[in-house]
Amino acid sequence: MFNFSAGPAALPLEVLERARAELIDWNGSGMSVMEVSHRGKAFTELAEQTEARLRALLAIPGDYRVLFMQGGATGQFAAVPLNLAAPGARTEYLNTGVWSAKAIEEARRLGVSVRVAADESASRYTTVPSREALRFDPGAAYVHYTPNETIGGVEFPYVPDSGTVPLVADMSSTLLSRPIEVGRFGLIYAGAQKNIGPAGLCLVIVREELLGRARADVPAILDYTRLAAHGSMLNTPPTFAWYVAGLVFEWIEAGGGLAAMAARNRAKADLLYGAIDTSGLYRNPVERTCRSWMNVPFTLERPGLEKHFLSEAAAEGLTHLEGHRSVGGLRASLYNAVPLAAVEALVGFMREFERRHG
Amino acid sequence: MFNFSAGPAALPLEVLERARAELIDWNGSGMSVMEVSHRGKAFTELAEQTEARLRALLAIPGDYRVLFMQGGATGQFAAVPLNLAAPGARTEYLNTGVWSAKAIEEARRLGVSVRVAADESASRYTTVPSREALRFDPGAAYVHYTPNETIGGVEFPYVPDSGTVPLVADMSSTLLSRPIEVGRFGLIYAGAQKNIGPAGLCLVIVREELLGRARADVPAILDYTRLAAHGSMLNTPPTFAWYVAGLVFEWIEAGGGLAAMAARNRAKADLLYGAIDTSGLYRNPVERTCRSWMNVPFTLERPGLEKHFLSEAAAEGLTHLEGHRSVGGLRASLYNAVPLAAVEALVGFMREFERRHG
Repeated sequence: MFNFSAGPAALPLEVLERARAELIDWNGSGMSVMEVSHRGKAFTELAEQTEARLRALLAIPGDYRVLFMQGGATGQFAAVPLNLAAPGARTEYLNTGVWSAKAIEEARRLGVSVRVAADESASRYTTVPSREALRFDPGAAYVHYTPNETIGGVEFPYVPDSGTVPLVADMSSTLLSRPIEVGRFGLIYAGAQKNIGPAGLCLVIVREELLGRARADVPAILDYTRLAAHGSMLNTPPTFAWYVAGLVFEWIEAGGGLAAMAARNRAKADLLYGAIDTSGLYRNPVERTCRSWMNVPFTLERPGLEKHFLSEAAAEGLTHLEGHRSVGGLRASLYNAVPLAAVEALVGFMREFERRHG
Repeated sequence: MFNFSAGPAALPLEVLERARAELIDWNGSGMSVMEVSHRGKAFTELAEQTEARLRALLAIPGDYRVLFMQGGATGQFAAVPLNLAAPGARTEYLNTGVWSAKAIEEARRLGVSVRVAADESASRYTTVPSREALRFDPGAAYVHYTPNETIGGVEFPYVPDSGTVPLVADMSSTLLSRPIEVGRFGLIYAGAQKNIGPAGLCLVIVREELLGRARADVPAILDYTRLAAHGSMLNTPPTFAWYVAGLVFEWIEAGGGLAAMAARNRAKADLLYGAIDTSGLYRNPVERTCRSWMNVPFTLERPGLEKHFLSEAAAEGLTHLEGHRSVGGLRASLYNAVPLAAVEALVGFMREFERRHG
């Protein structure tokens, strides 16, 4: 069974096997990790080790704080302006897809002044702005962008230069898929359910100097400063998701770290895009320079065939290939836990399907 | 091993065994329930069944909506005023313990006008107001109270009569521990990690007519109306916690429903309070008429003995008996998943400890 879900997505089998083995007796406690107090020594040690592993994987500088939050990226669409934009502040957003647009909508709904510094909706979100075209208000509180759009399958091949303005990135679908230079960002956030762990956990990596700027009326559970002061345990955190994330971090380490993930992920994406580009039946709409490594949307030249494609793929054990309900078509997500063998199987199936129906 | 944690708390062993058996291959899918799309047929069916089970257990009237949220009760401390109190509205809170006080603090921080209609802090939170003493502003947006205080171990033996003003209850530590009359409440919320499931899920049961009153600037993830419109899937929900909650609901059904839970819980509490009251070493500070069935704090007449008590108890497999760090002492939480045998073992240990050290 190969699972191409965009999220909640495939987890490494080794991680699931370990979680299963420990599910009823974790750490020799005679209890499940779900049953122990988050304030007890056993869990706080796990929490610290998990953060340390993440810091090592991403080489997070010492002046950044890591927060384990709830509410997903959608929660961060509110948390970012509530924490970083004082009343009256101006903010800058890049609009490169459905998720960027949702972040913009939420900031505006909260009364924040948003300037859209680049808008790719006219391309139907098949490209990103050129690096040279970007100009930012040097007085803005932050610049927000989405390095990878999970639905459109469009990805920035560069990190925008926001000068002295803090750069905020929604890395939900790319964090841990490759090395990044954390120091170039003021704040990174990511819902866990792609490359990190189960749904219900959201990671935030924030430069310490950006704390303490929250609006007075930010809900406590979205307040970075409070969360940081309490080691992400202002209230009961999602302990099981935190634990599984730690197992995933171990799995990444054991697999060679983020450089190894990047090499594998690039190879997987190259294989699938190659198969699409050399076929007469499949088509990916995204400009080649900004195609996503993580989410590969594609259509069939004969759209009536999509249902057949999905049912025949499922019969071969290739699941979750539906495109997002807002755009239709097909999509294969190729996160860390999707092995090369899955993409080989998919490409083999696609060729065979084309031979029969093309 | 018997686990008296106040939360995250013990889960039924049968539930953990089922979760373990299905962890890698759920529902014949060849995947973990953590790995499937929340929008796929398999998960949406699970979600609907889970809600239906909860509705049946609590006999939730048809004009109430059930929301599966994130952020715990602390998130609800913000969500309640943001959703139910229009700008300028007045609200009423009962202060009967640490959690009530936190709810009040959060509402005030968000700029909401709060009147504390009863304040039991002078009693060191060892009692609740008498039913007759309560008077509420008939123009208030809602009355908020905490039927059971997890830290103080104090519990309302009655449901306050708020007249036509919606009654809002933080039932984090009591929901599903006994039958309740949902129709007496405008809104009920509960963090899952006591009687419901793993941490990271928060249930909200809200009378439909209270939707649509949210302030314009409520963060989307805390907006009841949006959540209700999207079947609690505005964004990716905590799918694994939702699934485990469903298993817990099945376990409660199979165990005879909430009436059976109430009988067991009352017997457990009676046994422990009886042991405390008949001893010369242990003491529970709460007025007898409002002692909690769920959380039983107690102290030793010789406080220096507490460390010995905890270490000797742990050696007997009786864990998580520390009092909350804010009050110290000892505490045994007796949620649904704690069997009578656990309380029998605890009481036996307490008698033996008193014989040796009393």
